[in-house]
Amino acid sequence: MKTIEVCLTPDLLQHVYFEDKIVVVIDIFRATSCIVTALYHGASSIIPVMEIEECMAYQQRGYLGAAERNGFKVDGFDFGNSPLSYVNNPLIKDRTIAMTTSNGTVAIAKVSTATQVVIGSFLNKTAIIKYLLDQQKDALLLCAGWKGQVNLEDSIFAGAVLDDLVRDFKYNNDACGLARSAYHLSKNNPKRFLTDSAHFHRLKDQGRMDDIDFCLTTDIYEIVPILEKGEIIRLAV
Amino acid sequence: MKTIEVCLTPDLLQHVYFEDKIVVVIDIFRATSCIVTALYHGASSIIPVMEIEECMAYQQRGYLGAAERNGFKVDGFDFGNSPLSYVNNPLIKDRTIAMTTSNGTVAIAKVSTATQVVIGSFLNKTAIIKYLLDQQKDALLLCAGWKGQVNLEDSIFAGAVLDDLVRDFKYNNDACGLARSAYHLSKNNPKRFLTDSAHFHRLKDQGRMDDIDFCLTTDIYEIVPILEKGEIIRLAV
Repeated sequence: MKTIEVCLTPDLLQHVYFEDKIVVVIDIFRATSCIVTALYHGASSIIPVMEIEECMAYQQRGYLGAAERNGFKVDGFDFGNSPLSYVNNPLIKDRTIAMTTSNGTVAIAKVSTATQVVIGSFLNKTAIIKYLLDQQKDALLLCAGWKGQVNLEDSIFAGAVLDDLVRDFKYNNDACGLARSAYHLSKNNPKRFLTDSAHFHRLKDQGRMDDIDFCLTTDIYEIVPILEKGEIIRLAV
Repeated sequence: MKTIEVCLTPDLLQHVYFEDKIVVVIDIFRATSCIVTALYHGASSIIPVMEIEECMAYQQRGYLGAAERNGFKVDGFDFGNSPLSYVNNPLIKDRTIAMTTSNGTVAIAKVSTATQVVIGSFLNKTAIIKYLLDQQKDALLLCAGWKGQVNLEDSIFAGAVLDDLVRDFKYNNDACGLARSAYHLSKNNPKRFLTDSAHFHRLKDQGRMDDIDFCLTTDIYEIVPILEKGEIIRLAV
């Protein structure tokens, strides 16, 4: 039986051997929700980059640019970090978007040497679960967290994936138990469960309740974004 | 209202400012359970040390020595890391024990600059809660984890403390939600909840189910062990 484990923040990655695993990167609020949404709505690929300057250099060379720091859009970029900005947006059709965010793109960079990196969110939850079942490889669910700290929204998504895979994978570390516990208490009303979480407050204070609601919507996009040679593309099905 | 937060492993301490806080160090299996038990049963103090050599030097100078690595007693020491070895043991009466363990004593060392460091376990849960209520200072619950990784048994104890303090302290980070979720799912039967946890298996394989049962017993010792000038003593009441 294949194993699955959870890393609650990239700051704990040193304890996880992931080179031979499929890594699901999770940044519910909002980078991975953005990536899934943009690819579903027509973007051809996403280039995750670490630095704002690098992202701007891409934008100046004709790519679309998306940049967020501390929850806010960075001035001068085409996009910030709101998935709703990509919904039915004709500007992104067949375009590549260079993207840098506080947590999600950092997490992606840290696991780029894994066997495979895929992008998970509530929006494409079942597609990710089907993919993991199809591949039958050991898996790691990597929560992007917030600046190295654990967060609840990424953890409950990890717990949701674990819950659906309980018969097919062996849980491989104690973080699985924490994620799954949080998921169980949240599943009837994730928004209420997250009311006291740090990032919920941050987004609410920024007037982004619409993003919160959208990012907690389950299974509207049946796609698997996958990292290939530094770009995230839709897995062909 | 004072704040309380959880650090799920010492490897995440860089994200927590603890200098002005009371830190409760938690290593349920088994260092903090040992410290509470030894002090209750007559030891005058515990000196937590990082290295086996240092611990042996203390023992050679006439202190009692307790050393554990990877769950096992280190050869040549008076004690390993089993709290039951201290119960009604006349040898420890009025003695100081130098102690080194894989996780618990490491965690204590890392927060030694805090306003106050106290030692928490299920055995003295209510005493710790009363102490935090009396002090009315910001608090940090530090889970010792396992070699930098999070674990379930320390997390559910942190969640139990949070649960009793929900009306008196403001939860200050998302790790509180994870710990409290795990506590809620575990509280009716913590042993069953921990059955799949890593350290449960380790202790079970070593034939230490007696220690597991003992360490999950709640409120048999109404004492608060506190770090004073490098030694852990019973707080005078």
